[in-house]
Amino acid sequence: MKQLLIVGSIAIDSIQTPWGSADSVLGGSATYAALGARFWTPVGVVGVVGTDFPERFKKSFRKYGIDGVGFRQVEGKTFRWKGRYNQDLQPTTLYLDLGVFGGFQPRLPDSLKRAPYVFLGNIHPALQWRVLKQLRSPKITACDSRDDWISTQRRGFLKLLKKVDIVFLNDSEVRLLTGLHSLVQATRVLARFGPKVAIVKKGEHGVLAASRDSFFTLPAYPLQKVVDPTGAGDAFAGACLGYLTTHRKVSWEVLCRGVEFGSSVASMTIEDFGPSRLMNATIRDVLKRSRVFRSLTRAIIV
Amino acid sequence: MKQLLIVGSIAIDSIQTPWGSADSVLGGSATYAALGARFWTPVGVVGVVGTDFPERFKKSFRKYGIDGVGFRQVEGKTFRWKGRYNQDLQPTTLYLDLGVFGGFQPRLPDSLKRAPYVFLGNIHPALQWRVLKQLRSPKITACDSRDDWISTQRRGFLKLLKKVDIVFLNDSEVRLLTGLHSLVQATRVLARFGPKVAIVKKGEHGVLAASRDSFFTLPAYPLQKVVDPTGAGDAFAGACLGYLTTHRKVSWEVLCRGVEFGSSVASMTIEDFGPSRLMNATIRDVLKRSRVFRSLTRAIIV
Repeated sequence: MKQLLIVGSIAIDSIQTPWGSADSVLGGSATYAALGARFWTPVGVVGVVGTDFPERFKKSFRKYGIDGVGFRQVEGKTFRWKGRYNQDLQPTTLYLDLGVFGGFQPRLPDSLKRAPYVFLGNIHPALQWRVLKQLRSPKITACDSRDDWISTQRRGFLKLLKKVDIVFLNDSEVRLLTGLHSLVQATRVLARFGPKVAIVKKGEHGVLAASRDSFFTLPAYPLQKVVDPTGAGDAFAGACLGYLTTHRKVSWEVLCRGVEFGSSVASMTIEDFGPSRLMNATIRDVLKRSRVFRSLTRAIIV
Repeated sequence: MKQLLIVGSIAIDSIQTPWGSADSVLGGSATYAALGARFWTPVGVVGVVGTDFPERFKKSFRKYGIDGVGFRQVEGKTFRWKGRYNQDLQPTTLYLDLGVFGGFQPRLPDSLKRAPYVFLGNIHPALQWRVLKQLRSPKITACDSRDDWISTQRRGFLKLLKKVDIVFLNDSEVRLLTGLHSLVQATRVLARFGPKVAIVKKGEHGVLAASRDSFFTLPAYPLQKVVDPTGAGDAFAGACLGYLTTHRKVSWEVLCRGVEFGSSVASMTIEDFGPSRLMNATIRDVLKRSRVFRSLTRAIIV
């Protein structure tokens, strides 16, 4: 049995940034989340790819202990994204072809239905809902989303929020959903939409987290050099949830540690193109990064 | 002898924000810095006001233990600023009259020449330099600046940076000065321009601090309600320096604590129009805010 089930996109990305470019690298929300989580726990991914999906990418999943039992390869093309980031790390989509991902219907193999921890990547809220319905006895469920689902599938997403434990959104998504400009207010309000915890990712400006009665904030790891922000938010969520699987009881303090590890893993993701750095990293690298991160944000080390 | 000498503007501000407005309130960089520092140390302010400067404002300074010996009242009008903030807290100047501040020539009374701690508010770099030259045996000197001085008086400001211990700039100022977009890089580079410590204020996104070999970052205090950001940066610098005066040796850890207190005081400043909240606050309020702030940013309270 896999501890953490991740459902989302698996893609082939081509990326341009002011600092360089990468062509046809492994991408997708499920990919980054799984690679972020794998430091702490075995992961099962449910996703779909086309016949053009390279064998070496499949090997990558296996290499990092990511279970491919929910991984379907069907006739057609893999989801492809080509994008360019400006120096403020805002992306512009240059090319997008959903391919077989356009008809993605997540069906969970029995072994994954019993996963205690679940991350629903930013797929259509109706599909996220369908995954929830297939789960036997989840302990902690979490979801992400994106601007277009929040605009066009608002009701479906709000319904989903009543059923998940943790929601991860970025700054623009939470503003869109709550109609609030202040991110501190918006994060608190999001935590009242249903989930126990709302986590708002602000990229280079760090993260905010709220429950009904607690609040937590961290700056981003002060990276000297940003190479490629692709997937950092998904790796953040994956690492955060991965860490949570190692605790029998998820207290607020454990959640805050999870956010800290999420931030550390996200900062490493950004240091190289695509998932390269995330793939090369060991748990020792992650723990070291977290230690440094803590020392950079603590006035007093007691 | 006053511990901390502050040189800068004293103004009468009229402020509009999306959340309300305030007319003809006490303002100016020296005012906010002094009010931020007074929790920890006696402060002497050097500045100039016109004959229209209300008696009640003078009383305010005395009330908060701010020495008026370097405080000159001359024929003419007090510096007046009227501005409007948008919801992103970006200001637009609606009206500006430098008045007697336009001809400000800071001359230090003997008692202030011996101040061990000195903050040079964002006046012309040549005037900041002139103040430095009048000091007898400063222990720690710090300066601020603003976009127009960095653009038009670049050489003068760079010369000043070789002589001060701490420089406080905001995000746009440090980008302008260094030509670097990454604030982490820009903060590190700023610390190599001469000062021992560079502190970059990012408003709602927190603060970065660098020395030649250390780095520190904090998020902003997660305020539920922003009322008026005027003076927050100056109150930050004042509080940071005020805290430093309480330590015989200013280690990196002490500096980081100063940054933490600066953030706490800045967040309080923003909670009401003009300097109202800063004036009402006691050191107990500041310590309480700092304790809460720490608990909001620490995953583990050891």
